Amino acid sequence: MPAICKRVLFEAGGNVNERTLTLSSVSNDGHYISVRPLVKKNTEAEREFPFEWVFAGTKDHIEVTNETDGVTQKQVFDFWLDTNVYLGISNTHRGKVHTKWTTWESGLLLEQGTVFPFGKDGEGVDFKELWQPIDANRDELVIQDKLESQGRSVTFKVDNNEYFGLVVVVGKWVQGFLAKKNGGSKRDLNFVRLVESAFAGKYTTLERYGVDADKFPCEFDTVKKGDHVTANGVQWEVIEAHL
Amino acid sequence: MPAICKRVLFEAGGNVNERTLTLSSVSNDGHYISVRPLVKKNTEAEREFPFEWVFAGTKDHIEVTNETDGVTQKQVFDFWLDTNVYLGISNTHRGKVHTKWTTWESGLLLEQGTVFPFGKDGEGVDFKELWQPIDANRDELVIQDKLESQGRSVTFKVDNNEYFGLVVVVGKWVQGFLAKKNGGSKRDLNFVRLVESAFAGKYTTLERYGVDADKFPCEFDTVKKGDHVTANGVQWEVIEAHL
Repeated sequence: MPAICKRVLFEAGGNVNERTLTLSSVSNDGHYISVRPLVKKNTEAEREFPFEWVFAGTKDHIEVTNETDGVTQKQVFDFWLDTNVYLGISNTHRGKVHTKWTTWESGLLLEQGTVFPFGKDGEGVDFKELWQPIDANRDELVIQDKLESQGRSVTFKVDNNEYFGLVVVVGKWVQGFLAKKNGGSKRDLNFVRLVESAFAGKYTTLERYGVDADKFPCEFDTVKKGDHVTANGVQWEVIEAHL
Repeated sequence: MPAICKRVLFEAGGNVNERTLTLSSVSNDGHYISVRPLVKKNTEAEREFPFEWVFAGTKDHIEVTNETDGVTQKQVFDFWLDTNVYLGISNTHRGKVHTKWTTWESGLLLEQGTVFPFGKDGEGVDFKELWQPIDANRDELVIQDKLESQGRSVTFKVDNNEYFGLVVVVGKWVQGFLAKKNGGSKRDLNFVRLVESAFAGKYTTLERYGVDADKFPCEFDTVKKGDHVTANGVQWEVIEAHL
């Protein structure tokens, strides 16, 4: 089930806030990406890298278990890309993240988990994130009362000697990352967020970061699973194409 | 500034959830109503009265103070209608409610306050509510990144021997209550929530409760401040009309 959610709250270590316009995309096959750009850039560091965080993975980078209560779900993330890890930022979590998801009657989803920024044996920090499902087939942020959607679900992957990357297209929303394998700095990271306009075929760029941001695929409706498409020298594989 | 917000979270006494589709309307002149219908009715009592709460007041029933930081605001509510008070529900707050509002960079608003369900000298219960601004001029719940809107702001009031009531029209959204003066039971309460369709002039009823729900005004575009309109025997005064 392809889906897209907007985060409305992030709470950790007693602080509650939402500084980003975070959208998380999950494809029909379970590939995922969460792009978390800051709304306001208040410092030089924030202007240089205007993201709280980006993470992504294929269905092989997550385990999902539905509980029998029909309300909660466990998700264990084992990110393929975690920008904190990629950038070697100290005092951030390494390894799998165990989360519990509760669907409220209003349709909002509460995610709860614990991260270990000071290592496995260090003190854990509980966090909460609250997610509002939005209609993936609209070009605006239209609130939806259920995490449910029909429609396009296409995923592109690159994993070669030079790059790794993932682009997840859910309904009208496109989010992707492309990172240098032998990198590890901000200038080796690239992100994109596009939305197709109500009148199909035209895309608006909402986020675009990185010197290789021209290497993302830009044609999503004519591909089949197994296809290879090349964008300015980077060859992507279509690992999923529900059109 | 007319505005409408959807609540996404209610936290009190350590419980965090959102069971309602709550919309709060504030008119240009500061009249307000918050209608909080339950999404699912799980018990007989919830089916009989499918609201968590409804409150409302004119600008004389609230004090708003903007803090100098440009981020926070104090609001002291002195409700004209508070359904808990009207229905005489025990262990619910009486009197003014002091709240603090913080606007996050994402545009969401965190409301924090304390209520005293066991009386003024009893133990206080801290609560948090999180609000997502929506576009008042759309007939769907379209997320807006700021609490800011232009457009229609019309308020109707009735206050006679038999009834008191308020209808606040903000953009395309209409919310109102009508209550019997000498009542005090659920059958003396009436609520309405309407939204005007994208093609102007046609209204969809989203909530309609009570035996007198046919006594709400239903024409909003041809009125002037000071007008009186009668709806099935109840005469309403137009106390505000920004068209």
